Amino acid sequence: MKIVITAGGTSERIDDVRTITNSSTGSLGYAIGQAFLRRAGGGNTETDGSIEKIYYLHGLRAKVPEHEIVEDVPITGVLDLQEKLTKVLTEDHIGACIHAMAVSDYMVHRVTTLDKLLGTEDPEHAQDLSGNKISSDIDDLIIHMKRSPKVISGIRQTSPGTLLVGFKLLSGVPHEELIDVGYRLLQKNDCEFVLANDLREIGPDFHKGYLIHRDRTYDTMNTNEEIADMIVRRVLEAAR
Amino acid sequence: MKIVITAGGTSERIDDVRTITNSSTGSLGYAIGQAFLRRAGGGNTETDGSIEKIYYLHGLRAKVPEHEIVEDVPITGVLDLQEKLTKVLTEDHIGACIHAMAVSDYMVHRVTTLDKLLGTEDPEHAQDLSGNKISSDIDDLIIHMKRSPKVISGIRQTSPGTLLVGFKLLSGVPHEELIDVGYRLLQKNDCEFVLANDLREIGPDFHKGYLIHRDRTYDTMNTNEEIADMIVRRVLEAAR
Repeated sequence: MKIVITAGGTSERIDDVRTITNSSTGSLGYAIGQAFLRRAGGGNTETDGSIEKIYYLHGLRAKVPEHEIVEDVPITGVLDLQEKLTKVLTEDHIGACIHAMAVSDYMVHRVTTLDKLLGTEDPEHAQDLSGNKISSDIDDLIIHMKRSPKVISGIRQTSPGTLLVGFKLLSGVPHEELIDVGYRLLQKNDCEFVLANDLREIGPDFHKGYLIHRDRTYDTMNTNEEIADMIVRRVLEAAR
Repeated sequence: MKIVITAGGTSERIDDVRTITNSSTGSLGYAIGQAFLRRAGGGNTETDGSIEKIYYLHGLRAKVPEHEIVEDVPITGVLDLQEKLTKVLTEDHIGACIHAMAVSDYMVHRVTTLDKLLGTEDPEHAQDLSGNKISSDIDDLIIHMKRSPKVISGIRQTSPGTLLVGFKLLSGVPHEELIDVGYRLLQKNDCEFVLANDLREIGPDFHKGYLIHRDRTYDTMNTNEEIADMIVRRVLEAAR
């Protein structure tokens, strides 16, 4: 089976030197990559459990698993991710896509000043200052952002036969709400599984994760490695 | 001599997962650190040319030179840099400060929506949405930024006896303007030298740099390593 893993965070360009980035380190995606690599080359193809190739699409800060079957695909912003993911899903036969990347919900629409924004009838006409490098002497700088496309719905549309694992990271919500939101993501995008996790339950040595199934039951894990192993196990079971 | 090197870029927090970061990799600061380390431990103290200690203040993405005399000080935002730099300059006797870090000109003041901003009499009263994690379903998200304090002027005030090397990075300006802007930075902050460079003259294998002196003459270098070696040479000459 050939798989796609997306890991780390996207970064949206403001100007030549500034970007809005997601603080994701990519360590969970890395652990998932390593866990799949332990199943690679086993030759046990009759169970579909052997991994032939991993397309690893990752943010610029993320560490990339090194192995001859790993294709390293660096990603900048959401549109870059969308383009490269569509290309892979169209040109190769992908059995599973583990979409762990923290994709920015917003893209930079316009950079302007508070005065310019308040001084026009229509905010869409406020002068755009984004260019080479924004001047450093503006009193009130305004970054106007619009919602970015939902990459995960594109995956489903481009490659209906690919088993999809979605990810949902929230911050400081009650446990039931976390499972609810994760389950809604699963339903909306026809995911096989969704890994739900909460920033408040992630630390240097622990990482609580809940792998939600189609029947709304879920597996509970306590570290990156446990999460990675469980995802590999569930994906290979489901792919049989 | 004990020195401070600042390297990489600052990152300004938007919410729990989003930051505005400077795309600086810290590779020039790293090269400068390595060049100073080659002068460490030589025991040639009578020339003041021996380096006893390097405080290495760096952005989260930056690589840190490894050596027993290097103190590794990770930095997040501008205020964090200001606080840690002041502490080092106050508590130890610092001969030279090589301030190569790309410091954000702006800090996040408020996160709101276009509707909220346009719907209030006073923009300062627009509801602030920054908290744990900003919702992902806002149509027009506004990040309002204010100018951050000038860290370099603080260095001069905190430690008048420290030899200061400033840095100026511009993007796509005529050569004379680059030297002018660099020289004004030198005068304004009483720097011994300013390294001026332009993004358009930086590539994977080359890095044009102009080290401006107090008399407005300048040295011209073509790579990170040449720039690093020249800075070390000029700093040690000036410290004699």
